[in-house]
Amino acid sequence: MKAGIFGGSGYSGRELSRWLSHHPSVTVEFSTGSAKPHIPHEEGVSRPADVYFLCLPHGTSAVYVEKVRALHPDALVIDLSGDLRLKTPESYQLWYGQEHSAPGLLKDAVFGLTEVFRSELRGARLISNPGCYATSVMLPLLPLIQGRWVEPDDIIADAKSGASGAGRSPREDLLFCEVEGNLSIYSPGRKHRHIGEIEETIERETGIRPTVTFVPYLLPVERGILSAIYVRTAHSVDELRNALSTYYAGSPFVRLVERAPRLKDVTHTNLCLMSIHEGAPGRAIVVSALDNLVKGAAGQAIQNMNVALGFEETEGLV
Amino acid sequence: MKAGIFGGSGYSGRELSRWLSHHPSVTVEFSTGSAKPHIPHEEGVSRPADVYFLCLPHGTSAVYVEKVRALHPDALVIDLSGDLRLKTPESYQLWYGQEHSAPGLLKDAVFGLTEVFRSELRGARLISNPGCYATSVMLPLLPLIQGRWVEPDDIIADAKSGASGAGRSPREDLLFCEVEGNLSIYSPGRKHRHIGEIEETIERETGIRPTVTFVPYLLPVERGILSAIYVRTAHSVDELRNALSTYYAGSPFVRLVERAPRLKDVTHTNLCLMSIHEGAPGRAIVVSALDNLVKGAAGQAIQNMNVALGFEETEGLV
Amino acid sequence: MKAGIFGGSGYSGRELSRWLSHHPSVTVEFSTGSAKPHIPHEEGVSRPADVYFLCLPHGTSAVYVEKVRALHPDALVIDLSGDLRLKTPESYQLWYGQEHSAPGLLKDAVFGLTEVFRSELRGARLISNPGCYATSVMLPLLPLIQGRWVEPDDIIADAKSGASGAGRSPREDLLFCEVEGNLSIYSPGRKHRHIGEIEETIERETGIRPTVTFVPYLLPVERGILSAIYVRTAHSVDELRNALSTYYAGSPFVRLVERAPRLKDVTHTNLCLMSIHEGAPGRAIVVSALDNLVKGAAGQAIQNMNVALGFEETEGLV
Amino acid sequence: MKAGIFGGSGYSGRELSRWLSHHPSVTVEFSTGSAKPHIPHEEGVSRPADVYFLCLPHGTSAVYVEKVRALHPDALVIDLSGDLRLKTPESYQLWYGQEHSAPGLLKDAVFGLTEVFRSELRGARLISNPGCYATSVMLPLLPLIQGRWVEPDDIIADAKSGASGAGRSPREDLLFCEVEGNLSIYSPGRKHRHIGEIEETIERETGIRPTVTFVPYLLPVERGILSAIYVRTAHSVDELRNALSTYYAGSPFVRLVERAPRLKDVTHTNLCLMSIHEGAPGRAIVVSALDNLVKGAAGQAIQNMNVALGFEETEGLV
Repeated sequence: MKAGIFGGSGYSGRELSRWLSHHPSVTVEFSTGSAKPHIPHEEGVSRPADVYFLCLPHGTSAVYVEKVRALHPDALVIDLSGDLRLKTPESYQLWYGQEHSAPGLLKDAVFGLTEVFRSELRGARLISNPGCYATSVMLPLLPLIQGRWVEPDDIIADAKSGASGAGRSPREDLLFCEVEGNLSIYSPGRKHRHIGEIEETIERETGIRPTVTFVPYLLPVERGILSAIYVRTAHSVDELRNALSTYYAGSPFVRLVERAPRLKDVTHTNLCLMSIHEGAPGRAIVVSALDNLVKGAAGQAIQNMNVALGFEETEGLV
Repeated sequence: MKAGIFGGSGYSGRELSRWLSHHPSVTVEFSTGSAKPHIPHEEGVSRPADVYFLCLPHGTSAVYVEKVRALHPDALVIDLSGDLRLKTPESYQLWYGQEHSAPGLLKDAVFGLTEVFRSELRGARLISNPGCYATSVMLPLLPLIQGRWVEPDDIIADAKSGASGAGRSPREDLLFCEVEGNLSIYSPGRKHRHIGEIEETIERETGIRPTVTFVPYLLPVERGILSAIYVRTAHSVDELRNALSTYYAGSPFVRLVERAPRLKDVTHTNLCLMSIHEGAPGRAIVVSALDNLVKGAAGQAIQNMNVALGFEETEGLV
Repeated sequence: MKAGIFGGSGYSGRELSRWLSHHPSVTVEFSTGSAKPHIPHEEGVSRPADVYFLCLPHGTSAVYVEKVRALHPDALVIDLSGDLRLKTPESYQLWYGQEHSAPGLLKDAVFGLTEVFRSELRGARLISNPGCYATSVMLPLLPLIQGRWVEPDDIIADAKSGASGAGRSPREDLLFCEVEGNLSIYSPGRKHRHIGEIEETIERETGIRPTVTFVPYLLPVERGILSAIYVRTAHSVDELRNALSTYYAGSPFVRLVERAPRLKDVTHTNLCLMSIHEGAPGRAIVVSALDNLVKGAAGQAIQNMNVALGFEETEGLV
Repeated sequence: MKAGIFGGSGYSGRELSRWLSHHPSVTVEFSTGSAKPHIPHEEGVSRPADVYFLCLPHGTSAVYVEKVRALHPDALVIDLSGDLRLKTPESYQLWYGQEHSAPGLLKDAVFGLTEVFRSELRGARLISNPGCYATSVMLPLLPLIQGRWVEPDDIIADAKSGASGAGRSPREDLLFCEVEGNLSIYSPGRKHRHIGEIEETIERETGIRPTVTFVPYLLPVERGILSAIYVRTAHSVDELRNALSTYYAGSPFVRLVERAPRLKDVTHTNLCLMSIHEGAPGRAIVVSALDNLVKGAAGQAIQNMNVALGFEETEGLV
């Protein structure tokens, strides 16, 4: 199979190239946006491939999804931007603060949280890859809400991410001297786009809309997300753990562990590790860890490709 | 004034020496435990000074507090260990898992959260310096509970600390290769000693006992603590902000800021910066940042000394 | 005394503001280029002050030196850029690749390597502050060449600098994810501007022109420069050490130490620490360490101001 | 093929396990020294395997080499310690400061600098894996000396290593707070053990004994070694580059590059990248970069195993 990458010089695009170079069934044919050889995005559109990955900024990405699908209707297209994650133009306008550039795509795109939407992903031709923060919160939270193990209101997600999550475009606040030795919060509360993605996706799948207080942090590390999710529950830690273990029994990349996972347990892997701990009465603490560039981006994209194209789900990922 | 330091080679002891060397009214006469010249703790006991700082491990520290006070009854003794922070031997046994080595001291020690106990600290001769995590949680939380601005139950404190908080004794989990690029949780939930200190101190001062779910993290930075405290409240962010501003109006080291403080805004200073943000309905997020070695240890110890001995509170600290 | 700073928002300018805020005899009146309040450089020119510090990019800096001197002929002007470090327009053209914007200033500017040019600095009204790399190489090397302790040919300087030396303007290669966990060489050999500054300054002072192979590195740290200088010598390590000790006997900020200094021995101080070690026969290794933002920039600028204006040399620096 | 690892919990042992888990022809049967399941070294001796890797401290390692060979005479044994790198007990005594525990092994062990000793490694049954620093210096230097491209005297190697090179045993100077934000030199000049290994190996292979001034550094990164090697030469940079390119034409892991390689170009790979730059007249700068845990330890061990056992040299390494 032949793959094409749009935006191969960013952190997600580069990670995708690296992992695909080890995939036994896929060869990267071209990568736009990289230095050598430089291939403009427009040229990429005309290049034939079996699967296209789009690692472009939101707003731009949907435009190229449309162009690629027009020319290559049988190809699989996987969009790693935020453009196709929300399901209505209104919701997109609300969380992204701009009009959607290709609203017709929203209904066609399967949401690529692989473990949850695996059956819909089989044979899919358009996949929207989830956000990294959202993946780290939805994977533990969705089954707990679906099974009514936790109250959907008053969920708190305190989520710390490595700097690669902010991308590779030069910005003063991402300079080494600003991030090193530092820890900073941005968009605390109800402001971050991933809240919309989390709440809307969980509601779509479970029929229950959760309310999440979300605080994202910039960690002085290159990669990895560690989220602590504080939930209200009438159940024991063991019951919650069993609920998640059961839900993910057939999912090789999601695992329950005893001690809280550390970032380095998951970096450079496609794993999402989870643990559950007792809080004050009525509170449990759910911890999840993943690599934002792998399970939070390139790895999950390959996992989705594997499912969509009928490869083994773990192919090229272990 | 002459000062003596017990345990001058650890991170807190070293920080204390450095700050005291700039204090206009105090000279460090000796420092035990350091390499050159090496002065054993026992020798320190016999050395005359006006103020003694104890930067020793808990268990050991109270023993030397007793020895120093026996020989130098008029001197000021400031204990930076956890030995005198809880007020009953039972509570100490519960949280420290061992019998108290000098229970007679517990009642005499003034708790050195300077901004809260300033009047009791004037003229004090025995001060127990608060823990670094506990300081970062109590400073914002105590006034909010005292004024009944927030519900005392279901408080969540997600607190991230630099590695110097774990001390300088060699341990595999503190090696550079283990901490760098990593983020790890230890003692999540209801297990960390500082929970006892936070809940007991707030109850003593306000008459209301809070219940705190506490998750401490080891950050890949040398110094600093950033705590996000999630509280239930019927009040607006502005009301909470005003309540804290009013409470700390006369306190030069505690300041309310608009945007969430970052670690580097406070490292190498005696400041505690705080901000308040809106969460989901009924939830507010209180963020506090301080340097664990300064406001969380050496700086607050000097601040307490200043108050106890009648110096300007900010002397040697700006 | 009143001070004005041009370019107060860069790393050097900010460091200068911080140190000057502790200087007992100087008050910062204004700082251009900072956010709040924003003062344009042109407005700074018209503001009266006793001493002006220019932390602007080369090319721009000399222009403002001229403007300030035209309006405030009695004021002291200290230029932290590279504009006045070389002494002829030809040399400037050679190393900076552009025409000098104010060649008339070159002869008037005293070169502010304080320990070497102290007597010329007394009463000076225009001072060119040395480069950070150049300071770390010249301080140990100049006395050794002057005393003919080492051969002037075949000197090798392997110099590692923290990322703040590259400034605060956003650049992809200075992003956290690029610098963290990395070490990179730039301009190896005979290409870096500081070579011209080192060779020309040493020749001017000693009459002997050295030839330096220079390799600069970007370290994954915020601040500090550690240089290893490999010299050919017929003398023992002890003789070299004595030569340097004697030369710097009256200089409080330059010290010979036994073990090779580490970065953290000098960061946040105005010190330059040096050590000498035996290499293969005929080779000695001279190590020097300083903080690029302090002794390599803001600190040395204040030291020069102290000498020029007749203050104690260490005022505001300890 | 079945592999056994002695000392699997250290950084080299762990890296070896990780890489071997991807090797298509080898399975790790046991690993001693790890936590779960804990297998004592003595038990490992009795376990049958086709290849044994020893990641034990020097002194201890040779003892287990002897025990394993006594019981499993047909197995391949690869020692990653320093015990078998020098070829006489006298040299070992000189550089390691202790008597050799199994001098009879020294002559049997093939020195595993794969690219240089490839033909001797084919079919070998005892291999001494080179040191990480030594590999980074010998790979570029040996061919240049053999071809008389550079003068063997007055070679300077300035070599910076990540902290994993110092091992995983807790030591105060390896704590996060000591290494972070720091750069330190240890054993400068003619003291480090790898000097003996470099000079003796090059002499054995080329008949010419070089003299190396060696300065090793501890970098604040987890992994990687970047060495700058300053050589005297009458030849151009192009000639030197060609000489190295020709020498390594058939070696997939050693590559000449134009710009100086950075640490992150080689970390997590078995590559050694090299570049050559012009210094002052008569001086060239040779830069080499590798990952101390891969090409400097576990990766080169696997590469040696591949050659010794007749696998493809790159198997399991790309």
